[in-house]
Amino acid sequence: MTIQIGLVGTGTVGGGCIDILQKHREAFERHLGVDVELARVCSLSSAEAEAHGVGYLFTDDYHDIIDDPQIDIVIELIGGTTIARSVVLEALAAGKNVVTANKALMATHWREVMDAADASGKDLMFGASVGGGIPIIGPLRHSLIANQIDSVMGIVNGTTNYMLTKMAEENMSYEEALAEAQVKGFAEANPSADVDGYDSAAKIAILASIAFDSLVTIEDVYTKGITSITTTDLDAADDMGYVVKLLAIAHRMEDGIDVRVHPTMLPKDHQLASVGGVFNAIYVVGDFVGETMFFGEGAGAGAAASAVMGDVLDIAERLEQGVPPKETHLCTDQLPIRRIETLSMKYYIRFTVADKPGVLAKMAAAFADNNVSIHSMMQRGAKGDGRVDVVYVTHVALESDVRSAIDHISAIDGLLFAEPSVIRVEE
Amino acid sequence: MTIQIGLVGTGTVGGGCIDILQKHREAFERHLGVDVELARVCSLSSAEAEAHGVGYLFTDDYHDIIDDPQIDIVIELIGGTTIARSVVLEALAAGKNVVTANKALMATHWREVMDAADASGKDLMFGASVGGGIPIIGPLRHSLIANQIDSVMGIVNGTTNYMLTKMAEENMSYEEALAEAQVKGFAEANPSADVDGYDSAAKIAILASIAFDSLVTIEDVYTKGITSITTTDLDAADDMGYVVKLLAIAHRMEDGIDVRVHPTMLPKDHQLASVGGVFNAIYVVGDFVGETMFFGEGAGAGAAASAVMGDVLDIAERLEQGVPPKETHLCTDQLPIRRIETLSMKYYIRFTVADKPGVLAKMAAAFADNNVSIHSMMQRGAKGDGRVDVVYVTHVALESDVRSAIDHISAIDGLLFAEPSVIRVEE
Repeated sequence: MTIQIGLVGTGTVGGGCIDILQKHREAFERHLGVDVELARVCSLSSAEAEAHGVGYLFTDDYHDIIDDPQIDIVIELIGGTTIARSVVLEALAAGKNVVTANKALMATHWREVMDAADASGKDLMFGASVGGGIPIIGPLRHSLIANQIDSVMGIVNGTTNYMLTKMAEENMSYEEALAEAQVKGFAEANPSADVDGYDSAAKIAILASIAFDSLVTIEDVYTKGITSITTTDLDAADDMGYVVKLLAIAHRMEDGIDVRVHPTMLPKDHQLASVGGVFNAIYVVGDFVGETMFFGEGAGAGAAASAVMGDVLDIAERLEQGVPPKETHLCTDQLPIRRIETLSMKYYIRFTVADKPGVLAKMAAAFADNNVSIHSMMQRGAKGDGRVDVVYVTHVALESDVRSAIDHISAIDGLLFAEPSVIRVEE
Repeated sequence: MTIQIGLVGTGTVGGGCIDILQKHREAFERHLGVDVELARVCSLSSAEAEAHGVGYLFTDDYHDIIDDPQIDIVIELIGGTTIARSVVLEALAAGKNVVTANKALMATHWREVMDAADASGKDLMFGASVGGGIPIIGPLRHSLIANQIDSVMGIVNGTTNYMLTKMAEENMSYEEALAEAQVKGFAEANPSADVDGYDSAAKIAILASIAFDSLVTIEDVYTKGITSITTTDLDAADDMGYVVKLLAIAHRMEDGIDVRVHPTMLPKDHQLASVGGVFNAIYVVGDFVGETMFFGEGAGAGAAASAVMGDVLDIAERLEQGVPPKETHLCTDQLPIRRIETLSMKYYIRFTVADKPGVLAKMAAAFADNNVSIHSMMQRGAKGDGRVDVVYVTHVALESDVRSAIDHISAIDGLLFAEPSVIRVEE
């Protein structure tokens, strides 16, 4: 039996999938006993299909794939939550199995697409939606399933990790690092999804949903990007033995899920601290397995296509064996999401203040009045223009208390020269 | 339906399995829809079963488990290749699914036990045989299956990694490091399986068999342990920008498989270089996914039990769904094993020689006569007793040529004071 694949979206990742099918089809048959064949490809133009030598499979109407009774598996790689959502839902309704790399779709419409898969009795797999080629969803659903997962923390956005690495190691400004990332093709012309943290937020929503078996959507994720990070902060972090990473974090707490994305200070000896450049890594703690980490290329045609085709072959093996789809991820539990204001952690806070007597006393009083205990205070070089940077690291404090303290300090007349820089600290 | 588990072996890992079943049985039913129950435990004495509160399930005859028609899955955790082999083969013959953590059994009797699983139509899973709790066999078989795997390299023995870390960071001698590892319970009274590399050899045989889908047994693995490593070598490595790790290595080559275990110099910026202490890590390169790495606790009750129970739950889900076993690992390809003498790589070689004129010229001639080109030569401090250490790093050279050169140098009368120390270099 030949399993027919319909591919919707022939961009970078789609091209990688075509390459894999062309290069390894014979190996898949030999090793796995499954014969998978690319039957149709859909895109806006035929140029990419032609460039990969499959112009004869081209259509610009995805219904040609969904309406084709010979096609067993539909790969959705167009991204976004509008047409992609229709493709996925219509494909499932038409009795196709679906593989998608669409993090935005999964992080926004999880329940809808999962219910559609359930109703159709077909498989919906999305291993490439998080971490590019890094195997993480499979291990969470299988090898690690005997654990209660307590934490998932990751560097899941290569663009921002590349920028932060350049800023830290080559003293580039945020703007320089962004420009270089754009030149190298790591950042888009409009970099908001990366630098504002939304890409990471979608990914941690998906990871948390699986790890905790409880639905987390992108709206549940407190999200802050890296746009306000300066080399001053990175230097200060370095002096204190930390690196700054844009972390996607999900912790199981006694009374709910803590899930957030923000620049984070990590001790230099943390496993995630040494993950540089465009690489991604996901750190998982389970109650029996202890600490584990998964590392690899988080983006790029080959890595993402590897994950997509891994899912395709999983489904193909089940079709070949005549076996029903895997249980969908039902998110059995309904754990509440902890609002960030209710969380307690350590904070790095940098103020640019007027360099005059009494300033430190006023700030100290504001912290004390709001129950924020200070671990260390450090002046980082007077600027010679009547301004000075003052860096505080707090003890563990309640986010809402820290915010109140900052509000109080900000309200002191003539004290601050800029928005304070706040970076949460993860030990 | 309740899936009944028979556990053979109630040591550290077995105890961890009992703990997982007791702690998470309800969660497994809720999240996965499978009810797994510990039905019987077998060991030499009932003490451990009693310590875990399951003395009432104890038997000292494993046939009580194999002959019990109610039992669906047998977990073999007694280790070794004698009784364990009988347990696995008899369990399969009796129609049980089997989960084992037994690396020696799999690396020695792969074909026999796989054929037995095939004949019985039952599952045989062994995720815990490599890397403790680190998910690696699952990802190789699923998420990464669309790749041609080109390399698998790992630190897969926690004992030796702990010792090498202590020697490098605290300047301990081999003997001191071994003694401390024994005190801490990381090394056994007879440490041979660890320090001589056999444990790593069994694991890389299993990993290579899966990664290349071609049978590799422990006999195929060139194996050298860490017993001759000295702090002098670790210091020299450090000076040159390297660390020394006991690596298990498997490379796919054009004309076969290169598979070996030996102390290896790795550049400090390699992902595996920072893996210290008892941690394990496995680095995998695939033709589409690129570089990936899997990190975690390689031993310990919880980690290994996590992997065992992950396999048990995989089988339980299939039993619950009425689905046939996964295809066994048939090792379709029959790739030849490349003998180490035919491989080419870089070498670190330290000689302790007579500190007198002409010595270096004789050694240089021996290298040149055997086609070994030298990249660097360094004297490491005269010992003041007429002896001096001379360290060479070669360019890429053929192993057989390097051996000839060393033989020639060793044969020079009155030159060497000790066996040369040879460490292969991986870039």
